[in-house]
Order: sequence, then C-alpha cells, then structure tokens
Amino acid sequence: MTKVIDFYFDFISPYSYLAHKRIVKIQKNENIKFSYKPILLGGLHNLAGITAPALIKSKKNYLVEDCEMIAKKYNINFVFNKKFPINSLKLMRGLLIVKDEIKKEYIDKFFDAYWLLNIDLNDEKNTTNVINELKVDGVHFYENIKKQETKELLTKLTQEAFDKKIFGAPTFVVNNKIFWGQDRLDYALDEYKN
Amino acid sequence: MTKVIDFYFDFISPYSYLAHKRIVKIQKNENIKFSYKPILLGGLHNLAGITAPALIKSKKNYLVEDCEMIAKKYNINFVFNKKFPINSLKLMRGLLIVKDEIKKEYIDKFFDAYWLLNIDLNDEKNTTNVINELKVDGVHFYENIKKQETKELLTKLTQEAFDKKIFGAPTFVVNNKIFWGQDRLDYALDEYKN
Repeated sequence: MTKVIDFYFDFISPYSYLAHKRIVKIQKNENIKFSYKPILLGGLHNLAGITAPALIKSKKNYLVEDCEMIAKKYNINFVFNKKFPINSLKLMRGLLIVKDEIKKEYIDKFFDAYWLLNIDLNDEKNTTNVINELKVDGVHFYENIKKQETKELLTKLTQEAFDKKIFGAPTFVVNNKIFWGQDRLDYALDEYKN
Repeated sequence: MTKVIDFYFDFISPYSYLAHKRIVKIQKNENIKFSYKPILLGGLHNLAGITAPALIKSKKNYLVEDCEMIAKKYNINFVFNKKFPINSLKLMRGLLIVKDEIKKEYIDKFFDAYWLLNIDLNDEKNTTNVINELKVDGVHFYENIKKQETKELLTKLTQEAFDKKIFGAPTFVVNNKIFWGQDRLDYALDEYKN
C-alpha cells in the first residue's frame, strides 16, 4: 500500500492556502506524498448545511487576524485578499481541464494570485493574465470550463468528498481518517508516519 | 498592569473542557494567571448567527473523533458524553450564584461530571448529586438560579463577550486579542509571555 495524504482544498479558502504553503515546505525536507483534491467549498458547505465563516460577520473579522497570525507563525507570506469572498467556481473548474503537467503550477499560481498578490480574481481580465502566464490558451480555457462534463466533474468530486464525511477545507485524509483544518496537518502527518 | 488570560467557556463545549484541563496542567508548572469567564454558548451563537457544530450532522460526527484525538495528544482523560448536547443554562447560572471560594471546585466537578464521568446532566437528580458533593444546599441552589437577577447576569456576561467580538468557546483573550478554540491556547500563551 502506497501511503498518501489526500489534501482537499479550494482556492477561496485562506486556510487551504496556508496549508498548501506548509505542504510545499514539508516536501522540501521530507519524502511525504500529498495528493491534491480539488472541491468546490461552497458546494460542499451547501451539502453539509454549513454557513461559510465568510458569511458570518464576527467569524469573518476573526478570520483575517487568525490567518495573519498563523502565516506569521509559519513564516508564510500572506495578504488577506481585499475582495473576499469571491466565487471560485471557474478557478476550480479550470484546474480540472488543464493538462496534468501544469496542474502543480496552476495551483501555485492561483493560490499566490489570490492570497499573496491580492489580485481580484472575480475580474476575468486578471484570471486571464494568470492563465497566460501558465501558457494556457485563454479561448480554449474558457470554452472548456463551460462544458457540461467539466461542471459535472467538479460537482462529482465535491459530492464524493461529502460522501467521505468531509465538510470543510482544507481537509486531510490519511488511512480513511479525516483531519479538518490547517491546524490538523500535524495530526495527519502523525497518522501518515505511524 | 497585571496580565491575565481570560478564558471564556461553557460546560457544554468539549473543547472548553480540553482547554480547561490543559490550563490546570499549565498552572501546575508555570505562574500564569487565567480568569474564568462563564458564558452561555447557545446564547452567544444566537447573537452571532452561528449554528452550533452539534447541530450539523457531519460536524458533530467529526467533533467526537477530533476531541478524542486531542485528548489523546495531551493525555487528558475524556469521554464524549452520550447525552450531547444538553442545555447548560442551569449549570452556567449555578456557577454565578455559588460562593467565590467554591467556584473553582464547581468548575472542576461539572466539567468532569459531563466530559469524564459521562453523567446525564439533563437529569436534575444527577445535577443535585454534584451540588451535594460541593456541600451546596440544593433547595437554595435551585431557588437562586431561578432568580431574575441570575438570569440577567448570565445574559449580560454573554452579551459582553459578544460585544468584545467573541463568538465561540473556548475563547482566550490576552491584551484585548481574541484567540478562538483550544488550538489557539499556545498562541494566547505566546501573547501573554511576550
């Protein structure tokens, strides 16, 4: 059995960004296998009957300070995006249709664009700029993310996550055990190593 | 200025219990001042527009495993109460009306009764047993928790917490900074020590 830590994420989630950066650092030092699992967090919340923290005033205020505190602790460059939240549907669908060999870079670029460079990714011009940096053809990209099969695939992946009892992002899964939140990365690593 | 870590809690919250046990251990080794701040978590959630995790199926399932995992990590004896959630109103009001010199023991006893001894505290007989162990007169106790001024005091304390932008339990406050969740105890300690 090849062990792996499944990492469920959505670009819209600041804690997913922080977890992603921690994973990148961990992988520089240790041979630990992570598998990135895109989901639509809004869709997952709907399935679970959860109101996103971004939509609860007191939680949203806290969220900003909390993320900055965690970023500082782990030496992660981080800027809470001024346009938060946005609809991450196109960005997540996009990840499903780009070629396998650029998926890693796509993830890096879009996480950084939103949570480091403070770019408004609701504005399609800005999304196109990132796409172009990845040398992905824009016309092709927007055509593909609109396809019914792309829409259905993201819905399917999100439903599959929910069926595994996942209800938020980031979530780590190791040995079928669920670890919710970037705070639980250490516990997931313990499970992986034991 | 005397520094202190304010600890907002409700007996109904398993993470408050875990935080309480960690605090007890910390205080055995270090001279750190904690001030226990009772609130009604249900009331606080109402003020903040938050649905309790206990009322969201997927979150509640996760909650049990997550608490057990944390208890294990910190060597805390813990049994997820079979009768969860219950209404903690009487227990929280009771803390407000018992004499100062037994408040600490009241907190210990009720946390243990619910989160270690798995006692159904919805059943008034069981609550009375704990009260008796504390040598508090039961008749007097139940009379006092029904008083309008007791009810208003708990409402006031909960409102004051909300006014400080607190929205959950446990919450630590140091230097007017809010740290939500038992996971944030270490961050609160860092703030206290620096």
